[in-house]
Amino acid sequence: MATKNYKVEGMTCGHCELSVQEEIAEIVGVTAVKADHVSGAVTVEGDGFDDAAIASAVKEAGYKLV
Amino acid sequence: MATKNYKVEGMTCGHCELSVQEEIAEIVGVTAVKADHVSGAVTVEGDGFDDAAIASAVKEAGYKLV
Repeated sequence: MATKNYKVEGMTCGHCELSVQEEIAEIVGVTAVKADHVSGAVTVEGDGFDDAAIASAVKEAGYKLV
Repeated sequence: MATKNYKVEGMTCGHCELSVQEEIAEIVGVTAVKADHVSGAVTVEGDGFDDAAIASAVKEAGYKLV
């Protein structure tokens, strides 16, 4: 099980955190995800997912992986 | 049918607008509501609702009528 840290741009509130978390949680291999709109930090736990899938999920939620 | 304009503090994104709109839309007498997080403006159409109900709905959504 690995933990990876990402930075997401554009989250402004708790609703935004939930949107990002919901999209990332749908990725196969992801077992946990936590987003923080203040710092932009998104922590993802799991195995077998790649950065491209995370970037795509973040975009789907309406934000940008930086 | 009357239109009343309110100012709400704390909305930061489109999700926030939706939260405020959903709570206000539940008030009896309200027929339309539009919130704008940039200006904080909330426009409510309808009849028979009062400011206290709007304030209560805004608070329920997690924001503050100013």
